[in-house]
Amino acid sequence: MKFENLRFRGIVGVIGERDASRENYLLAFSLGKALAKKGLLVISGGLGGVMEAVSRGAKEEGGFTVGILPGDDPHEANPWVDLPIVTGMGEARNLIIVKTSEVLVSVGGEFGTLSEMAFALKMGKPVISLNSWVPERGRVRSRTLFPVSTVEEAVSLVCQFLGLED
Amino acid sequence: MKFENLRFRGIVGVIGERDASRENYLLAFSLGKALAKKGLLVISGGLGGVMEAVSRGAKEEGGFTVGILPGDDPHEANPWVDLPIVTGMGEARNLIIVKTSEVLVSVGGEFGTLSEMAFALKMGKPVISLNSWVPERGRVRSRTLFPVSTVEEAVSLVCQFLGLED
Amino acid sequence: MKFENLRFRGIVGVIGERDASRENYLLAFSLGKALAKKGLLVISGGLGGVMEAVSRGAKEEGGFTVGILPGDDPHEANPWVDLPIVTGMGEARNLIIVKTSEVLVSVGGEFGTLSEMAFALKMGKPVISLNSWVPERGRVRSRTLFPVSTVEEAVSLVCQFLGLED
Amino acid sequence: MKFENLRFRGIVGVIGERDASRENYLLAFSLGKALAKKGLLVISGGLGGVMEAVSRGAKEEGGFTVGILPGDDPHEANPWVDLPIVTGMGEARNLIIVKTSEVLVSVGGEFGTLSEMAFALKMGKPVISLNSWVPERGRVRSRTLFPVSTVEEAVSLVCQFLGLED
Repeated sequence: MKFENLRFRGIVGVIGERDASRENYLLAFSLGKALAKKGLLVISGGLGGVMEAVSRGAKEEGGFTVGILPGDDPHEANPWVDLPIVTGMGEARNLIIVKTSEVLVSVGGEFGTLSEMAFALKMGKPVISLNSWVPERGRVRSRTLFPVSTVEEAVSLVCQFLGLED
Repeated sequence: MKFENLRFRGIVGVIGERDASRENYLLAFSLGKALAKKGLLVISGGLGGVMEAVSRGAKEEGGFTVGILPGDDPHEANPWVDLPIVTGMGEARNLIIVKTSEVLVSVGGEFGTLSEMAFALKMGKPVISLNSWVPERGRVRSRTLFPVSTVEEAVSLVCQFLGLED
Repeated sequence: MKFENLRFRGIVGVIGERDASRENYLLAFSLGKALAKKGLLVISGGLGGVMEAVSRGAKEEGGFTVGILPGDDPHEANPWVDLPIVTGMGEARNLIIVKTSEVLVSVGGEFGTLSEMAFALKMGKPVISLNSWVPERGRVRSRTLFPVSTVEEAVSLVCQFLGLED
Repeated sequence: MKFENLRFRGIVGVIGERDASRENYLLAFSLGKALAKKGLLVISGGLGGVMEAVSRGAKEEGGFTVGILPGDDPHEANPWVDLPIVTGMGEARNLIIVKTSEVLVSVGGEFGTLSEMAFALKMGKPVISLNSWVPERGRVRSRTLFPVSTVEEAVSLVCQFLGLED
């Protein structure tokens, strides 16, 4: 009973809509697979939609997944979460996802996702926007925001930020 | 030693940049005065910039001001905060401002402000954007977001949302 | 519409059991009255039991009461809370009560109350224990813990800590 | 790059003093070793003292360790933390440790530890007290509090609560 093989190479946060469109669910699933293949730990909000899809994809490739839950019940996590972190702090848990991740990828998303992205940008963390928000104000865009259109581009950027070979 | 006159008619959250431009500082100051004249309690993050200006304006008109502080020290509040709420929870305190307010006004602001606005919009709270962000995604804008260009317009909308005569 | 009379002389946190015994409810009610008479703001968790009783007593004397709520709904506050602070952070709101108060009084209480008392003692805040816990370990007791048996003693100590004439 | 071997059998929270006595440091170190041998994930506050010792012991046996950090910097974790969860929420992170753990063991400890124990008891979680607090009020003790005097007893109880063979 050892965990000798647990050597993740980086922590990637994936945020996005709970009521995911089919397109975004599939994008997140592919993203999860690709991140796990690279040996990256996937952290998310642990619930449904994009959070479920990315965890499910990661597990398909033998990855390790963490879900930072808003409520008090570990069983609210989707079945592909290995480690549920139970916060009981509602949406304040979003900040924990952002702070714990080395780099973030957003997939689709409504205002909750925008809130997390903006918070990450405030902290100067790299945020890769995959079919998601690209907040601008007066044509000024954050230097750490990277809109991409494919999972491959997203993973390539993630590896670049973490100093890993693609 | 009674508080008989403490009858505030509503709770208005004011969010905005800490390193405020002169223009936004003056806007927030005028806003604070106007809100206090209407008998509204002003809640903010309690620190500098827009948070200071709106509290200062409110106090000039005999208003009551609350500052939801991120740190552990009540003395980090600006001098125009009547009641410092000490959270020690860092930026998670932003969510408390949003949840406690009946309506929010944003003045200027960087990504931290955008994060708060987006969170309020997610909750379906009215957000009045005064010289601030107007987040859109694919031309879709929240129904509870109201961009205005003057303090008068902002206060008029606040009163409308709270069911007060202007 | 001014708040000219809002001059509270200190912030006192009152913690205690939600399912209050009749005895503790009455103690908390008397305590609230006595604190308000001294011009002190009363802060509590804003719900039932001791929290309700102390707010109710304070309002009877024209005091000002703040309730730091665990949930997302301001209406979960008891009717004697003037200002509901809506945290949405569950029991983490207990820490906000402790950090915001200059001195705390505990009345009765179960393990939740003990948790708050211990946290306050850790921070070095004065805690007055009225018919409540007196945690000891190996006969060692905190220097900032003061067991009392009457409301008068409690209020006298509160005034002493705040530098007010009794 | 797979995590195939990551099959932890339960999540055990270990809490205790930061300025650990030599005795408590060694107890926590032995405890960490014993828990990891059982295939249990060890979660702690991720800093020094008891938190360090238990993580260090667990890693010596190839365990997996999580540290729920109070600050904003993942590098404040001790070197034996595999996965630092960065909360930025100060002591509110203690609640996350309690809520995430299936069973808790306290080792030594001052008032911060008592606060965590009391919170766990309030939630009805089993707390094993190893050379630590045994809170009582009027001779009444929680049914989920178990004072023990050796690491062996502690681990035996942990296994019992998790339904594992000792």
